[in-house]
Amino acid sequence: MNMNDIKQINVVKIGGNVIDNADALERFVNDFAQLPSPKILIHGGGKLATRLSEKLEIPTQMIDGRRVTDRDTLDVVTMVYAGLVNKQIVAKLQAAGCNAIGLSGADADVIPARRRSPIPVDFGFVGDIDAGNINTDFIATLLKSGVTPVFCAITHDGKGSLLNSNADSIASAVAVASAAIAPTFMHFCFEKTGVMRDVDDSTSLIKEITPAYYVELRESGVVNKGMIPKIDNAFAAVKSGVKSVTIKHSDNLLSDIGTVIKL
Amino acid sequence: MNMNDIKQINVVKIGGNVIDNADALERFVNDFAQLPSPKILIHGGGKLATRLSEKLEIPTQMIDGRRVTDRDTLDVVTMVYAGLVNKQIVAKLQAAGCNAIGLSGADADVIPARRRSPIPVDFGFVGDIDAGNINTDFIATLLKSGVTPVFCAITHDGKGSLLNSNADSIASAVAVASAAIAPTFMHFCFEKTGVMRDVDDSTSLIKEITPAYYVELRESGVVNKGMIPKIDNAFAAVKSGVKSVTIKHSDNLLSDIGTVIKL
Repeated sequence: MNMNDIKQINVVKIGGNVIDNADALERFVNDFAQLPSPKILIHGGGKLATRLSEKLEIPTQMIDGRRVTDRDTLDVVTMVYAGLVNKQIVAKLQAAGCNAIGLSGADADVIPARRRSPIPVDFGFVGDIDAGNINTDFIATLLKSGVTPVFCAITHDGKGSLLNSNADSIASAVAVASAAIAPTFMHFCFEKTGVMRDVDDSTSLIKEITPAYYVELRESGVVNKGMIPKIDNAFAAVKSGVKSVTIKHSDNLLSDIGTVIKL
Repeated sequence: MNMNDIKQINVVKIGGNVIDNADALERFVNDFAQLPSPKILIHGGGKLATRLSEKLEIPTQMIDGRRVTDRDTLDVVTMVYAGLVNKQIVAKLQAAGCNAIGLSGADADVIPARRRSPIPVDFGFVGDIDAGNINTDFIATLLKSGVTPVFCAITHDGKGSLLNSNADSIASAVAVASAAIAPTFMHFCFEKTGVMRDVDDSTSLIKEITPAYYVELRESGVVNKGMIPKIDNAFAAVKSGVKSVTIKHSDNLLSDIGTVIKL
């Protein structure tokens, strides 16, 4: 395959709650293997890191609902996200016929990050992605070789330290980089059907959200706190060249059921 | 760089005792970054996996001096080798100017393995490398892209399971695969100066071992138990096309002090 042969790219984010559910993960991995290539997967971490921290008696400190990553916690998330979760997904994808390669942002310097300023809040070894410096050429080289990158949310600062990053932010940044290679369609997969008008009504799926409609949904309070960063990330991606972002259930990767975010 | 531009390849194995020594590892990583490219690194695990198993109260079972890898132990070695150790080395190499990429054998199916037969001894999730099926093309693609592969000793069976493999065996198999790309020189780095005639005499380094001399060294008992598998591996590599294998101290990577194994 050469660069001109890449007609479109699918970028898929899979959330932590799916990672934690062995059956849901198995179904998702088999569906992802069937998704047309070239494609890229970004996975969250799940609760395994918290459970491992507890077993190792490493205190988990949260500020404003976000985890503080001290050195011990950084080691834990590196072991769990870049080691266990990433390599298990890769092995399962290989078994399902998808030639996956597991990567952190440090590998081939593919996702450079900057340690977040300790002011006003010191979150420790947390990295904000240097989105403009994603190594797009290397991602293209992998895709052209028929290899499917699988990213965890561990990055690095280029000075020798690994960093803990937000998987949604990585997914968006990778999708934007991918859009510079070929038209890119993004799928945010999690444990819900999409953005619902009424969370208690499974038939109230919102099929499409445009910027104007998003303003309306926020003002009316239909879009809740947990969903706002996801939709913000999605809009940031489409505004930077991604064709569309679909927020959907991990069981619906191969169907078009979900909420499409587009301009 | 295209394939024809690769004149020679350096394949380096770094042992677990160096991984466990932060200062020695730091020196080694900086030296490795200076070694001429293209190059490949294979690292052992060190004692961190054993320490993590202890903290998690996972019993370590040894048979004939070899670790039995049950499912919990497989998770531990995957976290430590493919996660923590591999990504820390990659981040340090990136900081030292070497564009490293960390890989397990599952990634891009680069090192397929087979679970060892449970007869006569069931070692659990231990993988013997399928040396003839190493993905040489992908390794060549990485080297031509200016990327330096860094392998841990985790492999997979192609059926969805990760496996724990021997790092020395992986190093030899990778070196043999590399020899099909370009003339390959291998360096086995550990915490000793090389093969010594007398372990208590630091001036007794054996500079070169040929097959005939090896027979003599074994018969006279000069070569001890721990060194025999290393030298056997080295001879297997040179018999399969690697130009030479040098067994040396991790501080001497850039010098020619060590024991050269050649035909």
